[in-house]
Formats: sequence, C-alpha cells, structure tokens
Amino acid sequence: MKEIKNQQVEKLVEMVKGVRVCMLITNEQNVENLSGRPMSISKIDEDGAIWFFTKASSPKVDEIEESKKVSIAITNENSNNYLMIHGTATLVNDKSKMKELWSTIMKAWFPLGLDDPDMTLIKIIPDEVNYWDSSSSKMVVLFNLLKAIITGKEYAEGDHGKINL
Amino acid sequence: MKEIKNQQVEKLVEMVKGVRVCMLITNEQNVENLSGRPMSISKIDEDGAIWFFTKASSPKVDEIEESKKVSIAITNENSNNYLMIHGTATLVNDKSKMKELWSTIMKAWFPLGLDDPDMTLIKIIPDEVNYWDSSSSKMVVLFNLLKAIITGKEYAEGDHGKINL
Repeated sequence: MKEIKNQQVEKLVEMVKGVRVCMLITNEQNVENLSGRPMSISKIDEDGAIWFFTKASSPKVDEIEESKKVSIAITNENSNNYLMIHGTATLVNDKSKMKELWSTIMKAWFPLGLDDPDMTLIKIIPDEVNYWDSSSSKMVVLFNLLKAIITGKEYAEGDHGKINL
Repeated sequence: MKEIKNQQVEKLVEMVKGVRVCMLITNEQNVENLSGRPMSISKIDEDGAIWFFTKASSPKVDEIEESKKVSIAITNENSNNYLMIHGTATLVNDKSKMKELWSTIMKAWFPLGLDDPDMTLIKIIPDEVNYWDSSSSKMVVLFNLLKAIITGKEYAEGDHGKINL
C-alpha cells in the first residue's frame, strides 16, 4: 500500500514539476461566490500535500477558515499536463516550516522575507487527483481518497476513463 | 456603454488568444462533486460569449442541465494571462452554429465531423471576468454583470484590486 502511495505522489510531483502557476479555487460551499486566483506551488511533500505561501490578511485565508474544501486547476500547455485536484486545506502558521519552504522567488510577494508578520502557509491534502493523459486523451484518477475509504482499498491504482469532452 | 462593452470583449479576446486549453468547472451547486476538465475554446463571439464543442453524451452536459453556473480557469504561462471567468452556460444544439464554429482540429474528437449525432455546443455568457495584470500583479475585474445590474452601471470600467496572494 505504502509503495503504491509513494508511486502516486511521485507521479503527482512529476506532473506538477515545471508548472509555475495553478488556479487555486476556494469558497466552494457558496456557489455564488466561488473564487479563484493564480498561485505558485511551493512544494509537494512526500505525503502528497501541496504547500503555498500566502498573505495572512488575504481574503482566501478567511474563505479557507470558512470552508476547507478547495480545488486546484492546472492546465500546462508546455508540459501537456492537465490536472484537477480536489482537497482539504489547512492554514499552517509554523515558522520552521516556512523556513524550510522559503525560496528567494517569494521575495516578490514578501519583501520582508520570513520576518513578514503577514505570512501563513496553506497546506492542501488532495482527496482526489484527476489528470488527463496526453497520449491517450483519457482521464485518469490518480487517487481518490474518499473512494478508497468507502471501498477499503487505500490508494488503489489509477482508474481510467475517457476524457469527457 | 456599447463601446465600453466592445472594448471589454476585445480585451477578453486578446487575452484568450493563443490559449489552447482552459479548465471548465461545472457542478458548482454541489460542493462534494464540483468537477473540472480541460477544454479547448472554439470562439469568443462579439457579445463576449464563450463557445465550446462537446459530446452530447458527456457528464458535463448533464451537469449543465442541472446547474447553469460554471467557471473557466485560465493559467497561461506562455502569454502570462491568468483569468477566472464565472458565467452561465446553455446548451445550443444548432447545426448552422456548429458549422460556423467548426474547425478541422475538432476532427480529433469528432472523426465523423459535423454529421456526428453526439455533438452539442456549450455557450457560456460571462457574468464576471477577473484577470491578473502581469505588469502590476493586480487583479482586475474586467466586468461584473451582477454588480452592473445592482449599481445600474452596465459594464463600468474595470475595477482594480491587489492580487490576493
């Protein structure tokens, strides 16, 4: 099981490598106010969690406090990677984690660096990862945690389905 | 008013030019089942409506019949265009419109061409278009139809706001 999970996280990391910008979608509980904004992924860790830096004062932080269900849309034409990730977000206000994830690119948004008091991390644990295989144009469910819980088969191999154009 | 609208549609067309793939998000009324898939935009017409070809039998068609609220996420790193469009979808089963929008690229999905019986069009009228200005990193509301209706100022000039990283 653990090995399959590792392979899936590796596959996720591989597909997202080189993607600078994704669309982070929040406020999904409120159909009239669903919102999205381009974001830069800081890291996908060994558990498959996706990390972002954000300003603690930004509206999306309030939205995540309100509802933890979020999605990430990736449409990278250069690498031909198309992913739709549904997950659960938490806010992580941990200086040592910030230090670990920090890169100088972040200075564009946080000129004060790690001393910026208006900084927090968003950690998104994917519940479901769908990607579109470029060679076959088919949708692949990389993993579906909810389905895994229901069926008792944790991190089963990817399901294949036709791309629903 | 009409002139401002034309300018906004022109700006929208300009930003989407060269974008091959966007993420079309449907089923927003149901937070547990929000879904997205990569789609190729066929055209943005002179009214700002966004057109897609789709298989009539695809799940997204059922989802649109269920709920017309949809979103389009665009993150194009090549052209530095980042847009989040919220709109209202309708299904258009009009052969002459299909003929007008048809291009040979569509053969990849519809080998039978315009004779394919499993073909329909999705027309999305944007209610709100947000984009991120690449030079200033600010979010710009290109237009917000709902706000326009409430304030009585149809298609007022774009509002500027800081990008909420």
